[in-house]
Amino acid sequence: MSSDKTESHTAPLRVAIAGLGVVGGEVARQLTHRADAMKAPTVRGFEIVAVSARSRDTDRGFDISNIDWYEDAAALATRDDVDVIVEMIGGHDGVALELVKTSLSRGIHVVTANKALLAHNGTELARLAEESGAALMFEAAIAGGIPAVKALREGLVGNSFSRVSGILNGTCNYILTRMERTGEAFGDVLADAQALGYAEAEPSLDVDGIDAAHKLTLLAAIAFGQTPDFDRVSISGIRDVSAVDFAYAAQLGFRIKLVGVAEPGRMPRMQTCLLPISTQLAKVDGVLNAVSYEGEPVGSIVLTGPGAGAGATASAVLADLIDIANDRIPPTFGRPLAQLSDGSKVENGGDPDTPFYVRLMVVDQPGVLADITSILQVHGISVESMLQQGRAPEDVVALVLTTHEVAVDRMAKALSEMEALSSVQAPPISMPILVGDLEG
Amino acid sequence: MSSDKTESHTAPLRVAIAGLGVVGGEVARQLTHRADAMKAPTVRGFEIVAVSARSRDTDRGFDISNIDWYEDAAALATRDDVDVIVEMIGGHDGVALELVKTSLSRGIHVVTANKALLAHNGTELARLAEESGAALMFEAAIAGGIPAVKALREGLVGNSFSRVSGILNGTCNYILTRMERTGEAFGDVLADAQALGYAEAEPSLDVDGIDAAHKLTLLAAIAFGQTPDFDRVSISGIRDVSAVDFAYAAQLGFRIKLVGVAEPGRMPRMQTCLLPISTQLAKVDGVLNAVSYEGEPVGSIVLTGPGAGAGATASAVLADLIDIANDRIPPTFGRPLAQLSDGSKVENGGDPDTPFYVRLMVVDQPGVLADITSILQVHGISVESMLQQGRAPEDVVALVLTTHEVAVDRMAKALSEMEALSSVQAPPISMPILVGDLEG
Repeated sequence: MSSDKTESHTAPLRVAIAGLGVVGGEVARQLTHRADAMKAPTVRGFEIVAVSARSRDTDRGFDISNIDWYEDAAALATRDDVDVIVEMIGGHDGVALELVKTSLSRGIHVVTANKALLAHNGTELARLAEESGAALMFEAAIAGGIPAVKALREGLVGNSFSRVSGILNGTCNYILTRMERTGEAFGDVLADAQALGYAEAEPSLDVDGIDAAHKLTLLAAIAFGQTPDFDRVSISGIRDVSAVDFAYAAQLGFRIKLVGVAEPGRMPRMQTCLLPISTQLAKVDGVLNAVSYEGEPVGSIVLTGPGAGAGATASAVLADLIDIANDRIPPTFGRPLAQLSDGSKVENGGDPDTPFYVRLMVVDQPGVLADITSILQVHGISVESMLQQGRAPEDVVALVLTTHEVAVDRMAKALSEMEALSSVQAPPISMPILVGDLEG
Repeated sequence: MSSDKTESHTAPLRVAIAGLGVVGGEVARQLTHRADAMKAPTVRGFEIVAVSARSRDTDRGFDISNIDWYEDAAALATRDDVDVIVEMIGGHDGVALELVKTSLSRGIHVVTANKALLAHNGTELARLAEESGAALMFEAAIAGGIPAVKALREGLVGNSFSRVSGILNGTCNYILTRMERTGEAFGDVLADAQALGYAEAEPSLDVDGIDAAHKLTLLAAIAFGQTPDFDRVSISGIRDVSAVDFAYAAQLGFRIKLVGVAEPGRMPRMQTCLLPISTQLAKVDGVLNAVSYEGEPVGSIVLTGPGAGAGATASAVLADLIDIANDRIPPTFGRPLAQLSDGSKVENGGDPDTPFYVRLMVVDQPGVLADITSILQVHGISVESMLQQGRAPEDVVALVLTTHEVAVDRMAKALSEMEALSSVQAPPISMPILVGDLEG
């Protein structure tokens, strides 16, 4: 239970850390070794009173001798001398959920990097926080060291947002960047990324877009003033991207990225798409993350930085802790719950009309182009550019085209008709082209 | 004088706007036309009670009939029903200074976009704010719509910063970008930028780096916990940049930008320099601004967006107003004055060793290269790359080279000796190469 208010402004903020893995350990080291630096913006500073972890004896680079140790993280929330719990356990249920619920119910502030927990249980947890007056803060959950939450919730709070988009998973961006640079296949790059520690042994959370969709759910909640609802995000990952498409995209002036896009009145979508090379998001390479906020009156703002890693994530945790130490306790999703609309009932305007990139593997023979352009014409789809690589009479060649804006279902029908052509040798590859992001 | 505390949490925040130019007018329109949107993050919302401007009759797109109007801005601070003054007059002395001093002395919060005012008088004004408990907020003063101040002061506050750098003047970045793309000379692009309204009729504040240096002064104060001291910034602008150098720089893998750099224990410097094309700052084109924050433990974060314009700047003003409405009143430079070191006494470690770009116009004859490399060798300067464009025996050609890191004064001596060579036909052009910024 948090101490009484008078004391809380002068005594150190009492911290318990649940989970001393890569990030939890770094937070503990920062609070310990940089204690003086932490006093500059808070005056009061911090004191770690308790931690929980699997093993007590691991050397984690900070003095644990005066800190109470627990094997069971849930026990941290039962103490009466803890002001804030740093939850670094992970997972959207189980111990993490129990710990956070108990803490918030008792008025203990919570700082977490757990996007899955909040994407699945955000509304319930925000309610507990609001009822007890505790903070529930999650800067570290989105885009690592980038102050993405604070920028949206406070720095740009005066705006009405028309779009929130981002490169929200460093593993995917690393894989795509490397496929583009080397022409390697997805599977080969993934295997190497796993060997290098950039990808998990079980990569599904990353490469299937789920982790990034958790983050997008939370950004959409803050930007559009709605409760988070992970079930209403359309999700696809990067497993189906072929290395050849990067080269074709580049020739046409685009790069391929996994981008999360949320717009008011539409289902947020996590999708592999083409970005014009002149946009800021297109220039974000490797393990970097970026968020792009578009609103009125600001225009577009892009924030870029490390999306993961001990130091970057710890920086975000420290910012939340310092806000709490300074009594800056924001509503969980930027507004009181009563002012949030119900995320599960947000109008679904469907996917917006969008330009498309299409690659067809066709037999190089007379009449193919006429067949394809005829299908496009029937569906009222106009071609922006077309590209055929080389000539190989009677052999299979790639035919690449980009379209002007078209309804997604109309494009799907046209693609299905193209696939039925005898000259088309494989299912057409198609990706939306995301336009309108910050250029320059 | 601000209202009593009980009232202040429920009644609208009472705003007076001094100056209804491009930005002041936009702030008034936003507060008027988007009043409901402003209540979402504040509950209480805003009420414009008074404005000052030269002419009352100009149609500025909002209803002025219920708002008290003054010709003299200073009169706004004498009212007893104003909670916050939005200062949009400009200038580092005169009316703006008087208005802000009076307001802060009386406990009236101030929100301003006036970087000159704060770069010159920041310490004095922060003291007045601290004594009365008023907020002095200036998100709009730096990089327009980018939440650069909040990111540094709060979002990344847990870090010890090793460098703060940025593209802080959109006019300069526009001119340099266009010189690079078209090969036009500085003077021609400036004239055109003036015609387009991107540059002022009197361009010195922009193109001589002064405006950007004002902003850099404030960023350094927050990042390094020191009082702002504009007199201790080394400033150069972009007048001397030649269009030819962009092409040479590009061949060597660099772009040319006006970048402000502040590092602990060194004089902040505003300089035209080369950036590796792989860095995020190098990718910021046209009128966009960007800030790059490098610290421990976060690593590097880059924020990009519109650095000027009515909407972008108004967005920053709204964020400050909403913070004030929510009683989030930070110390002016992020920490109480007692915790800031004296910016006028910061140790001056001199310019750091840096790689250089050098262009020499030499007579294409035997022995020239030997003379130049001999001078470099004498001064212990090692060459990273060298480039000679074409051949023109006995005629003048450009000889371009980049060096490894070298002390600035040693490089200056070498350049002076090169200039004295009979084969060198014009003063050598040299620019530092800024390394270490966020790549990817």
